[in-house]
Amino acid sequence: MSERLVVIGADAAGMSAASQARRLKDRDALEIVAFERGGFSSYSACGIPYWVGGQVAERDELIARTPDEHRERDIDLRMRTEVTELDVPGKRVRARDLRSGEEYWTAYDKLVIATGARPVRPELPGIDAPGVHGVQTLDDGQALLDTLAATEGRRAVVVGAGYIGVEMAEALVQRGYRVTVVNRGQEPMSTLDPDMGRLVHEAMSGMGIEMVDDAEVTGIRTGDDKRVRAVATADAEYPADVVVLGIGVRPQTDLARAAGLPLGAQGGLLTDLSMRVRGHADIWAGGDCVEVRDLVAGNERHIALGTHANKHGQVIGSNVGGDYATFPGVVGTAVSKVCDLEIARTGLREKDARAAGLQYVTATIESTSRAGYFPGAALMTVKMLAERRTGRLLGVQIVGHEGAAKRVDVAAVALTARMTVEQLTALDLGYAPPFSPVWDPVLVAARKAVTAVRKAG
Amino acid sequence: MSERLVVIGADAAGMSAASQARRLKDRDALEIVAFERGGFSSYSACGIPYWVGGQVAERDELIARTPDEHRERDIDLRMRTEVTELDVPGKRVRARDLRSGEEYWTAYDKLVIATGARPVRPELPGIDAPGVHGVQTLDDGQALLDTLAATEGRRAVVVGAGYIGVEMAEALVQRGYRVTVVNRGQEPMSTLDPDMGRLVHEAMSGMGIEMVDDAEVTGIRTGDDKRVRAVATADAEYPADVVVLGIGVRPQTDLARAAGLPLGAQGGLLTDLSMRVRGHADIWAGGDCVEVRDLVAGNERHIALGTHANKHGQVIGSNVGGDYATFPGVVGTAVSKVCDLEIARTGLREKDARAAGLQYVTATIESTSRAGYFPGAALMTVKMLAERRTGRLLGVQIVGHEGAAKRVDVAAVALTARMTVEQLTALDLGYAPPFSPVWDPVLVAARKAVTAVRKAG
Repeated sequence: MSERLVVIGADAAGMSAASQARRLKDRDALEIVAFERGGFSSYSACGIPYWVGGQVAERDELIARTPDEHRERDIDLRMRTEVTELDVPGKRVRARDLRSGEEYWTAYDKLVIATGARPVRPELPGIDAPGVHGVQTLDDGQALLDTLAATEGRRAVVVGAGYIGVEMAEALVQRGYRVTVVNRGQEPMSTLDPDMGRLVHEAMSGMGIEMVDDAEVTGIRTGDDKRVRAVATADAEYPADVVVLGIGVRPQTDLARAAGLPLGAQGGLLTDLSMRVRGHADIWAGGDCVEVRDLVAGNERHIALGTHANKHGQVIGSNVGGDYATFPGVVGTAVSKVCDLEIARTGLREKDARAAGLQYVTATIESTSRAGYFPGAALMTVKMLAERRTGRLLGVQIVGHEGAAKRVDVAAVALTARMTVEQLTALDLGYAPPFSPVWDPVLVAARKAVTAVRKAG
Repeated sequence: MSERLVVIGADAAGMSAASQARRLKDRDALEIVAFERGGFSSYSACGIPYWVGGQVAERDELIARTPDEHRERDIDLRMRTEVTELDVPGKRVRARDLRSGEEYWTAYDKLVIATGARPVRPELPGIDAPGVHGVQTLDDGQALLDTLAATEGRRAVVVGAGYIGVEMAEALVQRGYRVTVVNRGQEPMSTLDPDMGRLVHEAMSGMGIEMVDDAEVTGIRTGDDKRVRAVATADAEYPADVVVLGIGVRPQTDLARAAGLPLGAQGGLLTDLSMRVRGHADIWAGGDCVEVRDLVAGNERHIALGTHANKHGQVIGSNVGGDYATFPGVVGTAVSKVCDLEIARTGLREKDARAAGLQYVTATIESTSRAGYFPGAALMTVKMLAERRTGRLLGVQIVGHEGAAKRVDVAAVALTARMTVEQLTALDLGYAPPFSPVWDPVLVAARKAVTAVRKAG
């Protein structure tokens, strides 16, 4: 007797779930129907800045699996089809074909919600003017590239200085634009503590990018042709031939909210460890529309990141397919780069630790990516947080150059294992002059953190 | 009342210990006398291949702290002075000034043995001929450079294909030599399993290095001028204008053995967790002359590596200085490179697992250092060992290109935390297209290892 699995959203989480379920159950045992509002499946949104910047030549390189490739695996993938209503008691979804306008109900035995996130788009005068672009989907990326090709001026303003903002600043620099980044935070990269964000500010300024912090955008000024001319803040105006919005994203959960599914404080769906929506035996959710457990702080958070979405999909597909898997949670690792600057973080910032009721010490050090005498040794700054008394590692932030970012992985594993900074100092990390100083920078930070923990008593 | 600390050996372990002890106790509380047979203190032996290869221009760049810099810190460092006898019951050492020939006894309250390792130098006809070089000390490196400068021929043979051997092969390639590596193992890099060593063989062959495996050197052939002409094996002769011996090292423990101190199966001193020589309250030992606890296999091993020596010194200095620290052990991490090939390993090889009585499964995967579509994405092969039944991670080996080697650190931390491969699959590692595919290669290997564990039952 065949069951039907319905998947809403055909990007990383949804299609990983569908593919994994298909691996475990063939078409006779499980029918899979997937609905996707957009025109693309299984693509790397994280790669869009590099496509816009020109390092990735073709849009299609960002597509891991096309709709037809999914269909070849017996997944009935319906593109440009939006799910408009979820009837939980009736176990069915209503979909609308965006081309024909046709609407119809589809029953499910099992449901996967993978509706992703939507970019924050503040209600500002001029926000919808031609030349103002988000960069969340491939369609967004194409629209931006079209604007760049059609625009003579070479002034760009990026609104927001988080991951998307700084990566788009790099992309526009690569395209030859004079770039201004307008950011309402104290420093760029608010996922870092301000002292580490300051290093990003300085490095980006050094690249010729105009960095405007502590600035709330009040409107987009347009010309007689209705196209964007400038970005206005309370204090100033920044001329712009093109504006990119990189203000962040929120979980896309209108459908789930309307259906009465449980949402967290940040608006994401709440799931159990098997990624099943809490209280609902037949509904799973994953990717950018859920909140995940923060293993360090012990609460739920919304983190939109392709690597989590893929893991969620894998777990969901295993469970839907009759196998068993769980997603234990995250420690909050993220890496990024702006030209040759590498930025990484994992665990808690100072304000996260305070919010969690934790007392902590910090240690910040400078070291090099390779032995100091080895050609190409590049400076990096490592900041470490450790809990007072116990010495438990709470977080690490790194700003530096080549070889800096992925060093955060050591801390990510140590956080997962709930290690103390004293334990970190003894870690047997890879050492050879081309790869590391004899004390890896993470260990140098750990040694200083040990001292800080002891001093704090 | 002042105590006297005597340190034998003034490289990483000895002088780290002395420096840390000095930080904790000033000269009025602790007199520190250090003896060094050679002409240099606190230098990076690991950097010698890069000095010979020309990437490091000056010998002195490899010296972290000169004898005079140590003396400025109130350490009475006596260079070119060899300790020839250790009188444990009498708590004294006999030293000989190698320049004057003068011998004298020095009493100690506390003793640190940091005598290092000596290169294996097989008893072969011609082994002492001009043009045959070891590369363990700065003096060795200078002698080799002098030979290279004075020799017209451009044929080099490296005997041994471990870390020193492959790094010296790179150095000689950099210097414009035609290089042959003669190795008695089945494949180069016997610290890897042969299937992974094969990848090193292939890559080095691709660089134009002649790789001769399974070959025992029977002698060094010399010419009428007594200089080296070729390296002979049972089957062949390899023309050589210069020969570099990179066969490995053994603990330098003649002094300790003569004094009746406890040695392990591989000839290294045995210590407790505080790096105190077992059964001796006032004697510590660290660096290349000791055996260390292997946290995965649960036995003792000799591993000569600067990063361990520095940690040992730090721990010893803390304990000698009246503070407290321990060295819990190692997981066997090592990284190296040959031109653009990166090689890394941690934990157990297949034969180590068998020797430890562990049943295991393996998983080998190919992946890339960056998202597949990102420029510069480089292939790497990751092999993972996991214990049968429990799924506990036992070891990881990586052979690849840029961004491959330091990924082994994730596995090193996971081994320390005794994680299972299932736990690995959920690790929150840094993801962004310039740094990693959406599934980090280590996680891809872990996923395959999970499957292998389940299949093995």
